[in-house]
Amino acid sequence: MKIIVAKMAGFCFGVKRAIDIAFHIANEKRKGVYTLGPIIHNPQVVEMLTNKGISPIEDLETKRDIKALIIRTHGIPIGLSKKISSSGYEIIDATCPFVKKAQHYAKLLKEEDYQVVILGEKNHPEVKGLMSYANDNVIIVDGKTPLPKLKTRVGIVVQTTQSIETLKKVLTEAIELANEIKVYNTICNSTALRLKETEKMARKVDVMLVVGGKNSANTTQLTRLCNSLSVPTYHIETSSEIKKKWFKGAKYLGITAGASTPEWIIKDIAERIRDIGG
Amino acid sequence: MKIIVAKMAGFCFGVKRAIDIAFHIANEKRKGVYTLGPIIHNPQVVEMLTNKGISPIEDLETKRDIKALIIRTHGIPIGLSKKISSSGYEIIDATCPFVKKAQHYAKLLKEEDYQVVILGEKNHPEVKGLMSYANDNVIIVDGKTPLPKLKTRVGIVVQTTQSIETLKKVLTEAIELANEIKVYNTICNSTALRLKETEKMARKVDVMLVVGGKNSANTTQLTRLCNSLSVPTYHIETSSEIKKKWFKGAKYLGITAGASTPEWIIKDIAERIRDIGG
Repeated sequence: MKIIVAKMAGFCFGVKRAIDIAFHIANEKRKGVYTLGPIIHNPQVVEMLTNKGISPIEDLETKRDIKALIIRTHGIPIGLSKKISSSGYEIIDATCPFVKKAQHYAKLLKEEDYQVVILGEKNHPEVKGLMSYANDNVIIVDGKTPLPKLKTRVGIVVQTTQSIETLKKVLTEAIELANEIKVYNTICNSTALRLKETEKMARKVDVMLVVGGKNSANTTQLTRLCNSLSVPTYHIETSSEIKKKWFKGAKYLGITAGASTPEWIIKDIAERIRDIGG
Repeated sequence: MKIIVAKMAGFCFGVKRAIDIAFHIANEKRKGVYTLGPIIHNPQVVEMLTNKGISPIEDLETKRDIKALIIRTHGIPIGLSKKISSSGYEIIDATCPFVKKAQHYAKLLKEEDYQVVILGEKNHPEVKGLMSYANDNVIIVDGKTPLPKLKTRVGIVVQTTQSIETLKKVLTEAIELANEIKVYNTICNSTALRLKETEKMARKVDVMLVVGGKNSANTTQLTRLCNSLSVPTYHIETSSEIKKKWFKGAKYLGITAGASTPEWIIKDIAERIRDIGG
């Protein structure tokens, strides 16, 4: 069986940067450094980092020895950021620079008195962060339900992992409702490219393996895509989940992975399959 | 035969306003007042106005006794406006207020350092006016050919008579090419409503009469629309062009008219048809 690994599989720019920051600090063996929430949606990486002394906490009240907090790629609401600083903790900001940009634009749109519309998932941490930079009356839209009534001047900013198709849909709806629209296309290309490559791969192979955290939105999105193309697809986190029977009769196996999946997990999986005679 | 006249037929807000201004001045019997180009694209109205002492001139050099110039609904380039003023002539500005708004936005986009894109017909006087308020490197797009390469920050303004569908098309293309778009929807609703009503009417009647200047873009647009719906359609300027044979066997006749067609011409046509036993 021939194994093909997607070129765009694994860490995107922002995740790679955040992981580098976290492991750099771990290697310095500093005490009292935590990540606010899991650094990325990958349990294996979180465990590795915990073993090196940097564990995730869910809120500021959990630990007493906090000295510094690493902010993960999705970013945090501005209020929380102020609370951390006023608690006397150092902020080590690993927010993805593309998310930072989106936050900056959300703030700008608010300052320019636009009615701010965020295209994204309302419960996603990135969107919660963006909301705090816009204003209280910000509107969150997902492109699935029609837009509500809008004001005359509308400013649009986009969760970095949204698709350009959804943005186009929202734009064409909004231009019928508002007289003036200022829109920042803050979509990060890496998500779109990864989906595109995965789709192409899934159409050619007999079996697909999608590697990444079960709690990773962009990994489950890859799984959904492959399933929709009717190729047998398995979403796994590590090589231990692999079953030999999946590959019976298969000539080509495709492996793709979410933005929060480290390369060593992907390599480990490919090796494991070769070991079991896949 | 039943005659149905479109409710939206005839003068739009901007044209009605310009004609009111011109006839008001004509009634004052002021000397040396001209319109720069025909006040509207309707030869009959232009003739009436000429008979009352206000005739159109094509450029500033044509006449020696110019005292004041009436600017028509489409507006004029800012350079020409300055030239008129510096020549010592009074400007009587009958530019449509909606066009004025579009000019203002074009200027604003230029001042905010956007690459200005105008959606419109490049030879239309309104677009030539808008261009002058934007800048020299302004891009004119018509929604028919793909957009050229764009800069990072793009500002879009729209010729008032464009369709919302074309704007949507241009917007969805542009958002793939630029990171930031500021768009002013300067489309005037009356064009869209007139087209919509005409389409509905043309689907129900046996014959359509489209009334208006042969040189009027929005009138010929109505004719094109009716022709595309396969209803026998006649574009006329006045009642003298009517032929009895057009209505043979017809039970319903629909009459629509462009934005530059005065009500009295439409009424005259309806009466003429009744006279000839239509």
